[in-house]
Amino acid sequence: MRADKAYDELLRRVREETLLTTIDALLEWDEETYMPAGGVENRSEQMALVAGLLHERGTDPRVGELLAELEGSDLLDDPASPAAVNVRALRREYDRYVRLPRRLVEDVARTTALAQKAWAAARQSAEFGRFRPWLERIVQLKRAEAECVGYEGEPYDALIEDYEPGLSCAVVARLFDALRRDLVPLAARIAGARRQPDRSILRRHFPHDRQRRFGETVAAAVGFDFSRGRMDLGVHPSCTSLGSGDCRISVRFDERDFAGGLFTILHEVGHGLYEQGLDPVHYATPMGEAASVGMDESQARFWENRVGRSRSFWEHFFPRARQLFPESLGDVDLGELHFAVNGVSPSLIRVNADEVTYNLHTLVRFELERALVSGELAAADLPAAWSAAYQHYLGVTPQTDADGCLQDGHWADGLIGYFPTYTLGDVFAAQLFAQAETELGDLGEQFTRGEFAELVRWLGERVYRQGGRYPSVRLIETVTGSPPDHRPLVDALRAKYGALYDL
Amino acid sequence: MRADKAYDELLRRVREETLLTTIDALLEWDEETYMPAGGVENRSEQMALVAGLLHERGTDPRVGELLAELEGSDLLDDPASPAAVNVRALRREYDRYVRLPRRLVEDVARTTALAQKAWAAARQSAEFGRFRPWLERIVQLKRAEAECVGYEGEPYDALIEDYEPGLSCAVVARLFDALRRDLVPLAARIAGARRQPDRSILRRHFPHDRQRRFGETVAAAVGFDFSRGRMDLGVHPSCTSLGSGDCRISVRFDERDFAGGLFTILHEVGHGLYEQGLDPVHYATPMGEAASVGMDESQARFWENRVGRSRSFWEHFFPRARQLFPESLGDVDLGELHFAVNGVSPSLIRVNADEVTYNLHTLVRFELERALVSGELAAADLPAAWSAAYQHYLGVTPQTDADGCLQDGHWADGLIGYFPTYTLGDVFAAQLFAQAETELGDLGEQFTRGEFAELVRWLGERVYRQGGRYPSVRLIETVTGSPPDHRPLVDALRAKYGALYDL
Repeated sequence: MRADKAYDELLRRVREETLLTTIDALLEWDEETYMPAGGVENRSEQMALVAGLLHERGTDPRVGELLAELEGSDLLDDPASPAAVNVRALRREYDRYVRLPRRLVEDVARTTALAQKAWAAARQSAEFGRFRPWLERIVQLKRAEAECVGYEGEPYDALIEDYEPGLSCAVVARLFDALRRDLVPLAARIAGARRQPDRSILRRHFPHDRQRRFGETVAAAVGFDFSRGRMDLGVHPSCTSLGSGDCRISVRFDERDFAGGLFTILHEVGHGLYEQGLDPVHYATPMGEAASVGMDESQARFWENRVGRSRSFWEHFFPRARQLFPESLGDVDLGELHFAVNGVSPSLIRVNADEVTYNLHTLVRFELERALVSGELAAADLPAAWSAAYQHYLGVTPQTDADGCLQDGHWADGLIGYFPTYTLGDVFAAQLFAQAETELGDLGEQFTRGEFAELVRWLGERVYRQGGRYPSVRLIETVTGSPPDHRPLVDALRAKYGALYDL
Repeated sequence: MRADKAYDELLRRVREETLLTTIDALLEWDEETYMPAGGVENRSEQMALVAGLLHERGTDPRVGELLAELEGSDLLDDPASPAAVNVRALRREYDRYVRLPRRLVEDVARTTALAQKAWAAARQSAEFGRFRPWLERIVQLKRAEAECVGYEGEPYDALIEDYEPGLSCAVVARLFDALRRDLVPLAARIAGARRQPDRSILRRHFPHDRQRRFGETVAAAVGFDFSRGRMDLGVHPSCTSLGSGDCRISVRFDERDFAGGLFTILHEVGHGLYEQGLDPVHYATPMGEAASVGMDESQARFWENRVGRSRSFWEHFFPRARQLFPESLGDVDLGELHFAVNGVSPSLIRVNADEVTYNLHTLVRFELERALVSGELAAADLPAAWSAAYQHYLGVTPQTDADGCLQDGHWADGLIGYFPTYTLGDVFAAQLFAQAETELGDLGEQFTRGEFAELVRWLGERVYRQGGRYPSVRLIETVTGSPPDHRPLVDALRAKYGALYDL
């Protein structure tokens, strides 16, 4: 068989897998947005069927044959060509897939399905003991997964690899250590500052429908294309891609939380801009997908934090906000609002954390899950270790495990090695933003005028349309000339918060 | 292999097919309700993939083996047992499936996909010539389909059979002839009546959101379970079942058409009550499905016409309607509104037709498509035949083919043999309603009090939970003691319209 024929067959198979994945995404999106309660049973059967079809295709030996045939061919001579990128990525996926015994995959699926219920109940009653045996079992299974997949340094490497190909635990640890050394004192200085924002203005009354209208205005203004996407109310905020022209954002609103709704929208819109900006020519192949989970997260944080919490962003949008919410923002000025949305204080709950302390929450999780996987930390000792770490980095201690180690569902879901991508995203976002300012000049001036198109064009060229051409670390190096680096993030935070809090 | 093991395997396969069918239904529902325009290309690929998977499963020779094994076994000794019903129905579906050569199936799919575009364009410009070659080709393909499937009387029988198993063209023709003989003079007497309703009140201003609220109130009041279903705005009114606990109604509203929106809802709710009332034990098998397309339609027309256009229905709901639409209904009394929603006049467009003339529209289509399939009528002669039939039965003549033979998309869609199910549904509905009144007493009294539960319970027992146990004709005989009979419908129409129009 000629290499180009083999490549065609491989792509045909991959496209079919992608179609099934987007069908699965629709099933999930619908469940989160519109499905009536009575649909849940049939929905889980539908999803199990699609998962089975995907597994069948993912482990089909024919894929292995095609890959082997292509790897020896001159079709891949240029390592940066779409064919070479796709074959490398598909090889990695295929190997990971076939190395995992079906029994283990099923065991993980079954265990995490049950563990999620146990976790929810444990969190509800704040009893870690009810979740402990499940956590033990999941850590055990993920260790087994790591052993099957293989790793160079430590088992945790094999787990990170699933979300952030090419990134080792040691590199992440160095980056996070450096970040922690800068963030802990910054947060402390902010906490001790005399000047503090009035965050209560964000807790006034902001009706749902008007929050939604404001969010849609902002989303469209920064470039989200509503002819190729939509925004709905959903149980969990998310961005779901159902194909190259169909990107759906789910958000939720709390009438007493203006910032929560808007920054969630900007976060999901950041994911959405990436999805909508991927090269449609490469749709359904790794070349047409986000470079990694961390890189995807970087785009969300880029718009949420670097753009959305900037003074110039609010210079443009504040008049509109005041028009929509005259009762709640009529007596507020631009400076007060901008200060309020940048309020910082150490807290217990990650998802409510501000931009400065957020990454400390992630670091705690990274350290603890790494220790769980290596065996240095026993599941039974997690609550104590959690409290100690929170006290150490954030100066706060949870009263119950519900506000502590039971707050996130990730581990119950089998997501170990995932938390680091949140902070990697923040680090990447700051590097990209600094580079964009170097190349495009003062972005703030553009934001003040409501202009975001040049920035989106730049991101499109440098990031979106690169798709999976490079692993995230290489992509960051290619765009910014520097490896992953915590300093642009720290510099940006110091500059903004230094000015706001008069440090 | 033991028969019960074979049966288990057969059911497992059928359930998987049903899951795929409900996935397909979600893809379609989403396309009609929420999908952004940019999603259309990927959606058609997703649907093609699912269609392929369904075809693969539907024609799997293993199904034939299992059926053959079961047909000789004592598992089917009782012909009314679920196993016997399921095996018979699955045999019919399987035989039909495997008798159709794949090339023909693909040809029909491809031709109708293109024909729909050609039809839409032809209707837009009112040029039958642009659609004629497509219609010729489709009639040819459907004739070929009939030859492959086989039939006893005429080719059209094989096409009806797909929607209404066990019903022959000759039986339908006799029933429709009898109906026509009664309806044509009734419509003429109504047209000549001195007393006429003021239908303009239905064309006043009825805001969307309040029409929706009123529709939801009515739907819930008659028994539609919103915890196992929902109602959305859609391009085309429809009722989609996504599983036994998830039934979705799509409707649309026109601010200048109060009756159109409400009766569409009642129609779709009728389908929905049937879906929600099917026996969940038999979900995903023929025993847990509607008996036929015509029987399904009967439930829609039951609620739309027999219940929704009755005086007692409005005695209950009129106060609520007046409350919601004080500007438009404030000066209207119950009698006027009830008369208005029962306005009758011969018209050109089927979907806007009233209850008395509606079936004349269907009869025209039945006669003409039967003649097209038999070869008695050439596609080129359709417009003339259409006009002649409309003049003959309804006394009106279309000015253009857009208001004539191009008004419906059914033929472009390959649906030949489908139109009769609309009128069969109306006939069945009237028979069932008369029987319900015989058994339950004056239903009108219950409606006036807003009580619909006893009627729904009766339908549940007699129709819904019977599922596919009997072919529609047998089911009607079992419930009413009579074969399909046009007289209950004619009696009901004569009684109501005689009183309303002082005939």
